[in-house]
Amino acid sequence: MKIGIVGGTGDIGEGMAMRLSPLFDVIVGSREKDKAEATCELGTETLRKRGQKCSLTGVSNQQAVDDADIVILAIPYKHLIGTLDTLDGFDGKIVITPVNPMEKRDFFTYIPPPEGSAALLLKSLLPPTARICTAFNTIAANRWKLLDVDLHYSVPVCGDDAAAKQQVMGVVNHISKLQAFDAGPLAASHLVECLTPLLLNIARYNKMKDVGIQFH
Amino acid sequence: MKIGIVGGTGDIGEGMAMRLSPLFDVIVGSREKDKAEATCELGTETLRKRGQKCSLTGVSNQQAVDDADIVILAIPYKHLIGTLDTLDGFDGKIVITPVNPMEKRDFFTYIPPPEGSAALLLKSLLPPTARICTAFNTIAANRWKLLDVDLHYSVPVCGDDAAAKQQVMGVVNHISKLQAFDAGPLAASHLVECLTPLLLNIARYNKMKDVGIQFH
Repeated sequence: MKIGIVGGTGDIGEGMAMRLSPLFDVIVGSREKDKAEATCELGTETLRKRGQKCSLTGVSNQQAVDDADIVILAIPYKHLIGTLDTLDGFDGKIVITPVNPMEKRDFFTYIPPPEGSAALLLKSLLPPTARICTAFNTIAANRWKLLDVDLHYSVPVCGDDAAAKQQVMGVVNHISKLQAFDAGPLAASHLVECLTPLLLNIARYNKMKDVGIQFH
Repeated sequence: MKIGIVGGTGDIGEGMAMRLSPLFDVIVGSREKDKAEATCELGTETLRKRGQKCSLTGVSNQQAVDDADIVILAIPYKHLIGTLDTLDGFDGKIVITPVNPMEKRDFFTYIPPPEGSAALLLKSLLPPTARICTAFNTIAANRWKLLDVDLHYSVPVCGDDAAAKQQVMGVVNHISKLQAFDAGPLAASHLVECLTPLLLNIARYNKMKDVGIQFH
């Protein structure tokens, strides 16, 4: 299975690529193909030193969409609309949004768009055949990158396409110790997206780093 | 320290009283004092059989407010305004709200009042000297009641009065294996209150019971 990461050279995308590429064929997309290639070279070298084989290919964001079975939009909320304006080819694709619309005011808070969530905004931007799932919202960039650290976290997954959701949950459950939980339809994504500002507040007020979540 | 539970004969209040009364003086309030007394008699007997001493007193809701150092509002959201209409004496009291404004539509979702959260609605209803903290939102009634089961959960606590928040976090940390986390000011309570519909969705879609949360 091929997983394409749009924004794959960003903070979160890069760590995701490192974690995913020993398990799946990973296509790292970037606005600048050169940057994606450099990220993949460095990533391959890092994993090789760890004795891990991987499959990492640096391409443009559009190529990452075109060549992938599953596309992960590893982009900040503020770039969501701008990035999608430049891309097409989402028909029938499984698209994962880990995007959290939030702002730091006196504290971190959730500022969803009028659609109700980043996931529903995304739905309004993509063709109706795109199979959108919300996932990976609460895994901090640093945790993705610390390859020696197991990810003992729960990952709530939302989506309206049952088969796509099953496939995404399968991907989640392959990564480190992550455990996927079905968190309902795509319209319930706001309840997942607003976990991240909560976790950032908890990190800040309790002097912790990269706080994650487990359900049990 | 005396803890008063308004709505202490309800589903959650009853379990809270059982867990708290071996640790603190617990005053169980109800609209019907007789009912509160019966709950306390039964609770005392249950705990005695387990070899636990306790301090449980059944009173009216108003008496529970008047006699307590810390008041817990163990009432459903739909009864919040109605119950507070009948009560006074909150000046200077520490008041804990575990109240979650939510509804079951196609799935469970968060429906906050115009104030932004149940906690901020409560703030508008109580005198300005009341020291409101959000806590205990995500512990299911059944978990409170299953006295043999340790509560391995995290409890996010919000509030604007630092000393009151410290005291509430101290109470939380005394109960079973609960661990309190400072989740910021009272205005951040919506991020805590909306955890409960998320947990109910996760329970429903993954065929689980009484799902709780841990931060780490």
